Amino acid sequence: MALNSLGREIPESYAGRKLVPYGDPYSITPSGSVAARRLRRVNPGASKLLSSLREAIEASGLKDGMTIATHHSLRNGDFLLNRLVAEIADMGIRGIWIASSSVHPVHAEIIPHIKSGVVAGFHCGVNGLIGEMASRGELSCPIVVRTHGGRARAIMEGSVQVDVAFIAAPCCDEYGNMNGYSGPSACGSLGYAQTDALHAACVVAVTDNLVPFPVVPVSIPQTLVDYVVTVDRLGDPAKIVSTTTRITTDPVGLQIASFASQVIEASGLLKDGFSFQTGSGGISLAVSDKVRNAMRRGNIKGSFGCGGITGYFVEMLEEGLFGALMDVQCFDQEAVKSIAKNRAHQEIGADMYANPFNAGAVVNRLDCVILGATEVDTSFNVNVNTESNGYLLHNTGGHSDTAAGAKLSIIVAPSIRGRLPIVRDRVTTVTTPGETIGVVVTERGIAVNDRHPELKEELIRRKLPVKEIGELQREICRVTGTPQPLQFEDQVVAVIEYRDGSIIDAVRRVKE
Amino acid sequence: MALNSLGREIPESYAGRKLVPYGDPYSITPSGSVAARRLRRVNPGASKLLSSLREAIEASGLKDGMTIATHHSLRNGDFLLNRLVAEIADMGIRGIWIASSSVHPVHAEIIPHIKSGVVAGFHCGVNGLIGEMASRGELSCPIVVRTHGGRARAIMEGSVQVDVAFIAAPCCDEYGNMNGYSGPSACGSLGYAQTDALHAACVVAVTDNLVPFPVVPVSIPQTLVDYVVTVDRLGDPAKIVSTTTRITTDPVGLQIASFASQVIEASGLLKDGFSFQTGSGGISLAVSDKVRNAMRRGNIKGSFGCGGITGYFVEMLEEGLFGALMDVQCFDQEAVKSIAKNRAHQEIGADMYANPFNAGAVVNRLDCVILGATEVDTSFNVNVNTESNGYLLHNTGGHSDTAAGAKLSIIVAPSIRGRLPIVRDRVTTVTTPGETIGVVVTERGIAVNDRHPELKEELIRRKLPVKEIGELQREICRVTGTPQPLQFEDQVVAVIEYRDGSIIDAVRRVKE
Repeated sequence: MALNSLGREIPESYAGRKLVPYGDPYSITPSGSVAARRLRRVNPGASKLLSSLREAIEASGLKDGMTIATHHSLRNGDFLLNRLVAEIADMGIRGIWIASSSVHPVHAEIIPHIKSGVVAGFHCGVNGLIGEMASRGELSCPIVVRTHGGRARAIMEGSVQVDVAFIAAPCCDEYGNMNGYSGPSACGSLGYAQTDALHAACVVAVTDNLVPFPVVPVSIPQTLVDYVVTVDRLGDPAKIVSTTTRITTDPVGLQIASFASQVIEASGLLKDGFSFQTGSGGISLAVSDKVRNAMRRGNIKGSFGCGGITGYFVEMLEEGLFGALMDVQCFDQEAVKSIAKNRAHQEIGADMYANPFNAGAVVNRLDCVILGATEVDTSFNVNVNTESNGYLLHNTGGHSDTAAGAKLSIIVAPSIRGRLPIVRDRVTTVTTPGETIGVVVTERGIAVNDRHPELKEELIRRKLPVKEIGELQREICRVTGTPQPLQFEDQVVAVIEYRDGSIIDAVRRVKE
Repeated sequence: MALNSLGREIPESYAGRKLVPYGDPYSITPSGSVAARRLRRVNPGASKLLSSLREAIEASGLKDGMTIATHHSLRNGDFLLNRLVAEIADMGIRGIWIASSSVHPVHAEIIPHIKSGVVAGFHCGVNGLIGEMASRGELSCPIVVRTHGGRARAIMEGSVQVDVAFIAAPCCDEYGNMNGYSGPSACGSLGYAQTDALHAACVVAVTDNLVPFPVVPVSIPQTLVDYVVTVDRLGDPAKIVSTTTRITTDPVGLQIASFASQVIEASGLLKDGFSFQTGSGGISLAVSDKVRNAMRRGNIKGSFGCGGITGYFVEMLEEGLFGALMDVQCFDQEAVKSIAKNRAHQEIGADMYANPFNAGAVVNRLDCVILGATEVDTSFNVNVNTESNGYLLHNTGGHSDTAAGAKLSIIVAPSIRGRLPIVRDRVTTVTTPGETIGVVVTERGIAVNDRHPELKEELIRRKLPVKEIGELQREICRVTGTPQPLQFEDQVVAVIEYRDGSIIDAVRRVKE
């Protein structure tokens, strides 16, 4: 065990890999080269079309112990990963690592295949039951949770080698050109899959919508795709929307949104060239709404909106409030329609979105990002991976990436959730380091990180309820009481990898 | 010396590299991996903007003996390469190799710097005076002529390592996102530069049109660009058009075009899904015009038009005769306007266009390509590099790539040029092997390669003037007489690299 700079106990190694404890957000500099894929040759007349998923798995050369990847652009509506794992199990292949861009509750279907040893581990975070069962010691599979940018880094630097990428391709031609703009499983941006296509040893396009050559616009090109196979259905695009897409009507949420938007206005960032990211939750949308109104009032022309894109940001683009949308993932059908239509709605890969090891990702250009939290501590460290019961229930997504990149990252969260205080002495798990968090906004007050003294002063001048974070904590705990500390076993069930590959925390088995 | 399969004498080595003699178009299979670029890290807040080209050269770490690249999308209107070489000379750096995508007559300005040793050689073909002077023994600089696809291959496999790519960026932001769609030097597609950006050790964007972040659509992303520098002017886009863009009015040309279009109709390829490439010359456009009319008459919906794109193909796209344009390079201002506007006008990199060592380039999907020739021999081998005086005057472009990829490649050429017969016993230089050429069309008759027996039969059935190529040659020579064979020294002034890296011919010094 070693302590990292945040005082978290990090094992020496995990799942056969020596671990580097987290130090700070910006220092680790890569020394190696981009992981190289084999050159290949496909002569004119050769066909890439295969007749079944099984045939594609066979053609890919998938063997025991190898690593596969899928993308999560269909989110909880994805059918492919479950089908793949079932087929792999049926073929008698074992010990497969899953390096998908994310795993969702729908993928609980693969739990029997984890138990049987078909699936050996996860090179990605997991949402839902798999993490919960791992936290309870009911599943024995290493889980390495990565940020979206960190996953791109790991694949690009070769610390995760994807042997076969199976890419759900909502619109695909027989030579492998694809996009996600149309078809029964249209999901918009294929941003996560772009990294896989560039670096996987073998790339299989899986489609339920084979169209005549060539698919244009090309999101992933034929030059990277080895095989093409059709299936009945890739997924249910109605389930792309995983959280609400309506502005909250809850008074607590509205109060938080009001404070957050006032923080943005006070920050001095809300001027021509403003760039912004929010998630798709009800509070985030309420903040967006207030920011939009402020931009209209001030006649402000923003630079770009980023991240998982919602219809709300599409409206802002079409209204001229943003010059561009940088879209790694569409969060709703309005975004899917827009990316197919609006030239300034730019599809970007996860590398361009958030990888710390390139010549500069889009997150580096963010002025402001609105982020959630399950817990925050008095050093501004944020947890989004585990719930306060200690269960690993959520993937990191772009949380740490945008916090590290943006000039101002704002955590919005109700002060009390499930009768527990949002602010803790020590978060159950550190997802995102406090040194990259600017402000924590609750309905009971606003805590500003000391790294932003001018903003703090301005908020006080504007008579906003600025409180020291410890003060905010004490105020909340007067209502909730101080929660009992959770009890954990020594067993590490997952590690939380920071975007640069260092380990920011370990998730341990909950003592029950 | 070794003889390659076409009987050409190939030196054992050239410019320090051991050579592989050409064998056939499809057999060489790559064994290595894609050349890997260093990972890098650019933290938020870092600036990439430099104040002068000189500062950019310094920042890039360019040293004696290194290799630079520029793209030729501005063709004979490019200002950048001359300025760069002058600056490099001024800085006292020597022995630089130029691995640009092409060099044009305008770059004759660098000849003094070749003589003085600032420029050591060319990892690319050259158009104009540099090649002529090399052919006459007046310049001592190795020249390795490559096809567009072969250049992408060489850079991707690392046999050419570009140390610094200077990319003329007609529309660029301070973080290096760029496209060629707008600005005073708009050139449309940046297809050639994409390869350089992905693989050069250092990438410098050079722009005369710095616009607010972010440039969208993104043709080359910020993640690949190390520095951004502004200059007064990148070039003169009026000079993008290097040949005529009008349909020929010459009766010989019209006769050839008429025959060629009848060959296409007879081939059975002209049906729904038809894909087509032509150049921008007067005869090519006349063929396009006839093909367009045939498509209209037959209500044929083509698949895609490819290659250097002209306004003529744009009209066909907009008319619905093609579903897409695959554009590595815009050949006129109509194409530039279209690529910025038409979503089905797809920008593609040289890798996707024509690299033989990927999972399948666009040329593999071509039904038919119309190509030129300075000479053809009785084995259908084609020369486009040297003129019949033996001077190296032209780069290969996509000639060999498209011929190898297309189902049917048609050479269109007048039977007599400069009083010399187009058909020879032996071409001065082999650019493209006869085994990839389908038909040679002259105004005096049509020669069909034995590889297309059914087409030959159909042309005869249609009463077109089909002749054996030897017969065609004799008929032409009855007018022109048999030309005196050229005399060459032993000295090799350039090698012609086939798209797979083997050497298809060597160009020797002309005896004068």
